[in-house]
Amino acid sequence: MTARFSIAPNPADPRLTRAVEGVDHEGNPTTLNVVMERPLTIYLNRQEIVTAMTIGDYPEYLALGFLLNQGMLRHDDDVTAVDFDEELDVVVVRTARETDYEDKLKKKTRTSGCAVGTVFGDMMEGLADVRLPATPVRTSWLYALAHEINTAPSLYLEAGAIHGTVLCQQDRPLVYMEDVGRHNAVDKVAGWMFREGAGAEDKILYTTGRLTSEMVIKTAQMGIPVLASRSGFTAWGVEIARQVGLTLIGRMRGKRFVCLSGAERLEWDADLASVAEEDTKHRRKSAHG
Amino acid sequence: MTARFSIAPNPADPRLTRAVEGVDHEGNPTTLNVVMERPLTIYLNRQEIVTAMTIGDYPEYLALGFLLNQGMLRHDDDVTAVDFDEELDVVVVRTARETDYEDKLKKKTRTSGCAVGTVFGDMMEGLADVRLPATPVRTSWLYALAHEINTAPSLYLEAGAIHGTVLCQQDRPLVYMEDVGRHNAVDKVAGWMFREGAGAEDKILYTTGRLTSEMVIKTAQMGIPVLASRSGFTAWGVEIARQVGLTLIGRMRGKRFVCLSGAERLEWDADLASVAEEDTKHRRKSAHG
Repeated sequence: MTARFSIAPNPADPRLTRAVEGVDHEGNPTTLNVVMERPLTIYLNRQEIVTAMTIGDYPEYLALGFLLNQGMLRHDDDVTAVDFDEELDVVVVRTARETDYEDKLKKKTRTSGCAVGTVFGDMMEGLADVRLPATPVRTSWLYALAHEINTAPSLYLEAGAIHGTVLCQQDRPLVYMEDVGRHNAVDKVAGWMFREGAGAEDKILYTTGRLTSEMVIKTAQMGIPVLASRSGFTAWGVEIARQVGLTLIGRMRGKRFVCLSGAERLEWDADLASVAEEDTKHRRKSAHG
Repeated sequence: MTARFSIAPNPADPRLTRAVEGVDHEGNPTTLNVVMERPLTIYLNRQEIVTAMTIGDYPEYLALGFLLNQGMLRHDDDVTAVDFDEELDVVVVRTARETDYEDKLKKKTRTSGCAVGTVFGDMMEGLADVRLPATPVRTSWLYALAHEINTAPSLYLEAGAIHGTVLCQQDRPLVYMEDVGRHNAVDKVAGWMFREGAGAEDKILYTTGRLTSEMVIKTAQMGIPVLASRSGFTAWGVEIARQVGLTLIGRMRGKRFVCLSGAERLEWDADLASVAEEDTKHRRKSAHG
């Protein structure tokens, strides 16, 4: 099944999880597989930008996506190299011309998500002229995506305590990224799209996280017209989605979901009788944050 | 029941949630209560420090706790005033002497949590000499706390998409803070403790979030010897907990939990037969992030 993914989680990767010994509720010894968390320092040319805590897969995509989503790298920037040093946990993104990242470092905003160093003012500014394409969304796609994503082998199902973000096209999940911070997962998707030159207008972004203002802003900045989640909404997230024309679907559980923005783009082609209620075996338990 | 809380969530507060109209999975109109999310700009004396996205309750506690947990304010600092301007969404913390926060602003770390501007190096340094007291923990307390917290009226149960952090003493939840970012909720608890001069050595911190390195570090910095969660662990979170002597309990669901640090401090006094499996009605669904 995961052959359908261009990139799928690799729960078998020994660098991503570790067995830890503990004690269970009855006082018996137990061993738990827990996700790794390691620092990755991102440089843009000679400038150290940030140290992100990450599970450590796809450092190049994470670095590119972080810089893009922070507005420190533009889509027309000529990236001449992305060098990852596994010993030093450092990734260096090199561009042909110097960028204006220094201004970006002067202010920081702490959002409900996890974007250290995000310049919130800039994020809102950048959205003033964003109008996303009115891409139609079939409800049958949403159910197919939720089922395939929630049943795909993942670090989440293996170890929990991790977030997932999946770039999808119609009913096909393409790139499934996981990370300890859900914004890392989104950034890895953005980095992949940049590297592959993937178009955004026909994509759907699925996240395990909440539909907060920052998730909505990042998705809009990436040019993706549909954001779906099994989690809930925040008021500002909904407001911004309506402002930029993002179709926002949340609380996807089994047959159920709620659409708070762009419902006019939904095509109700799914046969609800054929949609299974959520299988508890595969139900994504609370991974939050 | 919530009379037992010194501070409990107030789901009825109209400033914290808003009714939003949308469409459900059958195409029918539906109205959802969603949590508000608003910027709060925190100043330390004349220096703008950060703009946090928050639900907006207890801005003074959030500002104090953020500055304390970022190491920009010390417990021996003389806070002369905390002024909140509701019009401007600004809170100003005034201290008798200038602080060394400027150094702290030179570097930023993005963690798996939500601590913009956190200086990770400093966080680890600050822990070098931290040894938490070996406070005993009765398993009966853990079950009592989980039950009372999960059944208390909350924004989470009302609107979802929110995180909770609860300061507890033995089997009593004292201060239950919620916010769109779980680190805001922790910081509000820290601010309350600072204002009330509450001791940390006999406290238990309960969080709805994952037990990541940053949650563990914050809890240790606050001097609280026990951190419990219904969510999972990260490897580094466990390592740091063991290093500082923090009792770390995760995956608390009904009868079940796992202790990956400090198990020798647990007192197994609970009668498991009397502990109800989790009531699905009150089960905290995935609030993540």
